[in-house]
Parts: sequence; C-alpha cells; structure tokens
Amino acid sequence: MNYRIILYIIGWVLNIEATLMLLPVLTGVIYQESALWSFVVSGAACLAAGLLLTFRKPKRQYFYVREGYVTVALSWVVLSIMGSLPFLFSGSIQSPVDALFETVSGFTTTGASILPAVEDLPKCVLLWRSFTHWIGGMGVLVFLLSLLKLAGGSHMNLMKAESPGPSVSKLMPKVHSTAKILYGIYIIITLTEFVVLLVSGMPVFDALTTSFGTAGTGGFGIKNDSIASYSPLIQVEITIFMILFGVNFNFYFLLLLRKWKQAFSNEEVCWYFIVILTAILLIGWDIRGIYGTAGVALRESAFQVGSIITTTGFATCDFNQWPELSRTILVMLMFVGACAGSTGGGIKVSRFIILLKYTRKELSQYLHPRQIKRIRMDGKSIEHEVVRNINVFMIIYLLIFAFSLLVLSLDGTDLITNFTAVAATFNNIGPGLELVGPSSNFGLFSNPAKLVLIFDMLAGRLEIFPLLLLFMRDTWRKF
Amino acid sequence: MNYRIILYIIGWVLNIEATLMLLPVLTGVIYQESALWSFVVSGAACLAAGLLLTFRKPKRQYFYVREGYVTVALSWVVLSIMGSLPFLFSGSIQSPVDALFETVSGFTTTGASILPAVEDLPKCVLLWRSFTHWIGGMGVLVFLLSLLKLAGGSHMNLMKAESPGPSVSKLMPKVHSTAKILYGIYIIITLTEFVVLLVSGMPVFDALTTSFGTAGTGGFGIKNDSIASYSPLIQVEITIFMILFGVNFNFYFLLLLRKWKQAFSNEEVCWYFIVILTAILLIGWDIRGIYGTAGVALRESAFQVGSIITTTGFATCDFNQWPELSRTILVMLMFVGACAGSTGGGIKVSRFIILLKYTRKELSQYLHPRQIKRIRMDGKSIEHEVVRNINVFMIIYLLIFAFSLLVLSLDGTDLITNFTAVAATFNNIGPGLELVGPSSNFGLFSNPAKLVLIFDMLAGRLEIFPLLLLFMRDTWRKF
Repeated sequence: MNYRIILYIIGWVLNIEATLMLLPVLTGVIYQESALWSFVVSGAACLAAGLLLTFRKPKRQYFYVREGYVTVALSWVVLSIMGSLPFLFSGSIQSPVDALFETVSGFTTTGASILPAVEDLPKCVLLWRSFTHWIGGMGVLVFLLSLLKLAGGSHMNLMKAESPGPSVSKLMPKVHSTAKILYGIYIIITLTEFVVLLVSGMPVFDALTTSFGTAGTGGFGIKNDSIASYSPLIQVEITIFMILFGVNFNFYFLLLLRKWKQAFSNEEVCWYFIVILTAILLIGWDIRGIYGTAGVALRESAFQVGSIITTTGFATCDFNQWPELSRTILVMLMFVGACAGSTGGGIKVSRFIILLKYTRKELSQYLHPRQIKRIRMDGKSIEHEVVRNINVFMIIYLLIFAFSLLVLSLDGTDLITNFTAVAATFNNIGPGLELVGPSSNFGLFSNPAKLVLIFDMLAGRLEIFPLLLLFMRDTWRKF
Repeated sequence: MNYRIILYIIGWVLNIEATLMLLPVLTGVIYQESALWSFVVSGAACLAAGLLLTFRKPKRQYFYVREGYVTVALSWVVLSIMGSLPFLFSGSIQSPVDALFETVSGFTTTGASILPAVEDLPKCVLLWRSFTHWIGGMGVLVFLLSLLKLAGGSHMNLMKAESPGPSVSKLMPKVHSTAKILYGIYIIITLTEFVVLLVSGMPVFDALTTSFGTAGTGGFGIKNDSIASYSPLIQVEITIFMILFGVNFNFYFLLLLRKWKQAFSNEEVCWYFIVILTAILLIGWDIRGIYGTAGVALRESAFQVGSIITTTGFATCDFNQWPELSRTILVMLMFVGACAGSTGGGIKVSRFIILLKYTRKELSQYLHPRQIKRIRMDGKSIEHEVVRNINVFMIIYLLIFAFSLLVLSLDGTDLITNFTAVAATFNNIGPGLELVGPSSNFGLFSNPAKLVLIFDMLAGRLEIFPLLLLFMRDTWRKF
C-alpha cells in the first residue's frame, strides 16, 4: 500500500476544503454574522493539516485500484469530520455525532437533517450546509483531478471509486480533461438554475442555496417547510432542474458535441424519463382527490417524483399523508435512483436495465440451452464483469440494508420509519415516511443508530465498495 | 412441445388427487358429516378427468426441461382448482377466488387463510385443509415419480422443477428410488410426530391435522387461536418437529446410511441451526419483559422463530404485539426460509450461503485481480451455473415482490400489512404483521389482490421459474 500518495491526496482534499470555506466566510462578512469565525478557525485547521501533508510530493505517484478506493473512502471521512467543525464551533449543533450526521448528509447529498428547525441558523451556516451538497454532488476528488496532475493511469482508479454507476465512461481520452468537462457542465447548469430562480422572484440567498441543493441532488432547504412556501412557478422550475441533474452527464456532453442521435438514443436516459412520467401520472391520479384540480395534483406529483427519483429530497407537501399507492410508488422510486454519471444517488437506472436484460437473457437460455447471447446497451455489448459487479453490489446492498434495519429496530421505532430511514439515507435521498417523513427529522434516533445511518450515507454515495474495503483485513495486508 | 405427455402426467396427478380425497371422505363417514358428499363429487370429477387423460399412454415419453417446467406448473394449477371444489360444494367458502386462495395456500404449504374462524367447519373439511399441506410439502409430482416409470432422464426434469433449492441432489442413481426414499423419510417423521403428540395428550384428530400441518411446514390450524391453547409440552414438541422438517432431507438420508461425519458437516444444516439459535436468543431477550420468566420467553421465542424460518406459520401468541427488534428479526427470517430439499419455503439457507461465499470471493478478487478462486460448499466446488441461477432468481424475486406490493397498495391497506402479506405468501409462511398478523386473516383483500397473492404462493412454492415460463411466449413456440 502506497501510504505516501494516499496522505498526499488527502492533504490536497483538505486544502480544497479550506478554500471552499471562504464562501461561508464571505457570506458571514456580508450578513455581519459572528458565526463566520467558526469557518475561519475550521478553514485554518484544514489548511494547516493540508499543507503539512502536501509539503513534499511523493516520488512514487503510481497507485492501484486498492489505493484508489482507500484514498477516496478516507478522503470522504476526513472531509466530513473537518466539515462538521463549523457546526460545532458556531454552536448550531451541540453533539459531535449530530454535527457529523449533518455534514455527511450534506456531502453525500442526502439532505437528511437532525435539526428540527433551520430558519434560526446563521446565514453562513445555512450556506455551508447547501454548499456541501454542491461539493459532494460531482465529487471532491473529481474536482481535484481537474486541477492536479498525477502520473500514469492512476487518475482512473480515483474517478472509478467516486463516480456513481456500474461503469465509468471517459468522455475524453484523458481523465484530467473528463473531470474538467464534467465540472464545466455542472457549473453551467447550476448557474442557469440560479439565474432562472432569481428572475422568477426568489431572493439571491435563497436562489443560491436552492441551486446548490438541486445541483447536488441534496435536499437541505433553508426554510422549515423546504420548498412549500415558494410560488408554483418556482416549484415547477425546481422540479425541472432536479430532473435535469439526475440525467447522465454524458448526455449533456454529447449535446455539446452536437451528437444528437447518439445523445437521444441513450437507453438509460430514455428509461429514466419513462419511469418519471409513469410515476407522475400514477401518483397524480391517486392524489387527485386531495388537491382539487388535476393541474395541482400533477404539479405536486411531479415535484415529489422528481425529488425522490433524483434522490434530492426537497418537499412541497407532506407526502407521508398521501394514499398508500402513492407512498408505495415513492418508496420504490427511492431504490431506483437517478442515472449513472449524474449527481443523484440510489441504485441507478442503468443497473436495473442491465439486471433486466441479464434476466431476460438467462430465462431465454433455459429454453434454448445451446444459444449464446450477449447483453447490449446503447449498441455496445456489456462485459461480463460489469454484470458480476452489479450482482455483488445488489447482494451487499441488501446485507447492509438488513443490518441497518436491525440496529435501528433496537431504538423501538416502527418498521416503516426504520425501513424508510435506511432507504432514504442509503440512497442519499433525505426524508422517508412516518417519523422521518418530510415534516419530521432524524433527531429522534440514538447515537448508534445515527452512526449506522452515517455509514449508510457514505456507503450509498461511494457505492459501497470503497467504504467496504476499509473494513477488510486483506486491504491492509502487504502483498 | 410434447403436449401428449404433459396431459398424461396431469391426468395422473388428477387420479392421485381423487385417491387422496378418500381420506376426508373417510373422516366424514367417521364423524357422520354431510359435507363428505362434496368430496365424493369432487373426487369423482378428478377421477373422470384423470382417467380420460391417462387412457392411452403416449408413445413419445421423453421430454425436456421446458416440458418438465410446464408440466409441474400446470399440474399445480389443476391440482389447486380441483382441490378447491370441496370448499365450494360444502358451502364452507362462498367465493371461488377465496376457495382457490385457501387451496393454493394449502398445497403451497403457506397456511394463509381467508377464513375468520375455522372451528365451525366440518371435520372432513378441516382435515382436507391440513392434508393439502402434507401433499404439497414433499410435492405431488415427487410422489408420482415414486409410482410411475417414465422413459430415460425425463424424471429429473420434473424433480428439478418441483423440489426446492438451488440444485437437486439425487440420493440414489435413479430418480424413482430417490423419490421413494424421500417419501419414506417424510412418512416416518410425520408418523413419529403423530404418535408423540398423541402420547402427550392431544386428541387423535388434532394430532393428525397438526402433524400434517407441521410436516408440510404449512400452518393451517384447526383452532381459531392456532396452537396457543395446547399445553406447553405440546408446543415445545411442535417447535422441535417444525425445525426438523426444515432440515435438508439429504441429512436424514445420510443418517440412515450411518454416514455421520458427512451428515453433520453439512454446511447448510449447520448454518440453519446457527441462525435459529441466534434468533431465539435475541428475541427471547427482547421479549423477556412481556413473559415474566426467561423460560416462557424462550419457549415463545423458539416456537415463533421455528414457525417462521421453516415457513410453517403456526402461532402460539400474537407476535404482532412484540417489540420492534423481534418483529424486524421475524420479518427477516421470513426471507431466509428453511433448508433446500426440505418441505419449507422461503429463499433457502443454501442460497444465502452461496451468495455470501460468492460475494466474499468477488471482493477478494478486487484486491487480487489475477487470483482464481472457486466457491466450495460441503467440500464440492459450486458450478458457475448455480451461482448465475441464484442471481437471476434473486432479481426476479425482487421484481415480483415489487409488483405484488404495488397491486396490494391499490387496496389502500398500510405498507407493513402489504409488505408482510407479500412476504408471508411469497415465502409460503402464512401470517404477516398488522392486518395480516397471526390473529387476523387475508379476507380483507380485494379479489385482484388475492389473485396476485395466489400467484405469489405458487411462484414461491415452485421457486418462480416453472410458473414464469408459463407466461413467456417463447415457451409455446415450436422449435
């Protein structure tokens, strides 16, 4: 294990975090809040540790899959711990576990909060909460890769570990350029949303934080009722942008290259929209009685469907009160998740497509045992290794889910609360049903339960494997 | 497709069913009940149809996997439809869908009932309910195979389709002999339980029906409170026999051959007992407050754990009222299920063992990409095809589960009721939680929901593939 390079990269992550903390400091200066000092101190701590670790560039810069996974997992842990300091220093959150929960929830773009009310928090703290979504959405190591130049093929092993989806496609031959393009697209759509919201009458601060929350598919709001008090126009706009951020970013890249045909024949994006449309119509029909007109019912349905499938977690109403069919569909969407290569979480549409194609192939193989078929997606045949990885992913997913459910049940909370709490954190969504519904928060859980949920959020964001390797003895053995 | 042989075998299944109906007729004679005529009429109908279909032996007796699966699936459907007639003719159940639900629940050894009270039913009807468990437990085609001689390797394709578990091991070189031995062991243990229960003071009728229900891991009781009103001694005895019927029957065969070492090193049986013991202790600790003494708590815990993991579904108390930890553990055990090659349902312990070993292997492959490892169980290496089948099984399992949940949610019943109703039928258990808890029944669902649950019960018993092939266009195509 090349510890030197791991520490070096973690050092750079800390340097970046220190830089990013300048934004809340600036906010504190503008709004003249004393809480800005908690960011100055935390930022200084990050910088000190970061500079120490990046003081000397290691000679052996090459590293393998194992180092890649470990680096990414440790980076996220360090990022979260340091990011929780401002919450503690400013007194916004008292308990260290709660502060860590809130920060991990931010970086992993979950949006589950332990805070019963947020409107009293200083603006700089609110901004930091939403900003963590934006940083975590595209990934801090992807950001680092767009700045830093490492030797050889090492980049890809970092990118693989942090990017969501069953397989990572490089947009450009060089990872360095791919990372730059991804962040470019990310910044452009975020800015577009910011401007659109501003024009629609949202205050600057609200528009900025909401754009951060939408872009990262995070879900932290700056109001106690999330998005409910904004105008219907703004709600529709946020719906559209949530859904846009759940699209595979390759799609946008292909649009940029004017490869229209290739872009619009992307199977994952097609199915993503089919699922969204079906869910909106079904739920809209189911809740028509509650909202009087079909228009309002469809708007509420679209917002919640968009919010859940992209794993954002904003809310415009308490969908916990909706009829069972709608609740069941929403719970299922929690697992589907957004597209691979987007900022959204969940199991991802492409994993389901591949699993379905695999199943169909295997069933037909029962009937025609001698036939040899290959699964194809977007015209390319899918490697056997990708299918195997997905199968293993699903098994470990179910195991972690069951284990988390068991730990939460020790708290004595009801089964739906526990089930949706795990689903909402593991899939990086935010709100669940019952006691963790959109009008409630995660403060009710005990510390052990919160620690398990913190693990789930990280495991969900990093798609399990990097985090899991940290706990395997084999990883740390010399060979 | 060799339709001739398919119809011929279904004919034999009907002949057997007609013969089996003699037992309720005899019961009706003993207790002088008029309901016995409904069995005479139904039996005659079975026999008439059966004789017609078996009048001429087809020349081409050979058939392939496809025919094997279709035969088994259709046999079970026909068996269930004809088996539901006595319920209708005797007026015990009014609606045909309800009668079919009850019969499928019987043959698939689920034990979920639509009847709010059973004590008023004629004894011959009660006996038929419990007897269907016994018939379905080991399988009617396995029974047929022990009688009928078919050409070539055709037997194995029937056995494969009806026997539970990821792979079927022939105990003897000939399927014919294997089927005989299996039924031999089955009859001996059932008789043993019958005698033990008699000696412990159970009335003859109760002992017989309870033995049928335990042996098939079914769960239909003849009392409204299931097993609760019997003495603690009887409850402990039933606990032990439930767990014994969940053991892989290969284990007993090896004991008969005095291959002690091979028998006791069976990994599936070991893990089966480890899971049971852990669950009993955890739940016993969790419910200690409810039952005063540790002894009673452990007895109740052991009964319910045994009842759920073997997918029997008997109850001695309303575990729906237990604390969340216990409820969560019971829900998880619903999915684990019993051993392969037993009469129990669920996903089966061996599938989980193989999946875990597969996962461990794949994870270690990430770290050592060049290493080639094989998974082994009971000292033998597991073929890649078995692992692939399990993966496909799990995916389709989850899909059917999600679809069923969606249909049930249209009824407006709560999420826990729907979730556990599907879990309890798909895994052939019987009672779930909340509205389908042990003190309630499945009568509350609408007909569409009941039809979906009927499908789930059959799919669970036949382990999905045979039933699924019925719905694939490819199956019926000539090639």
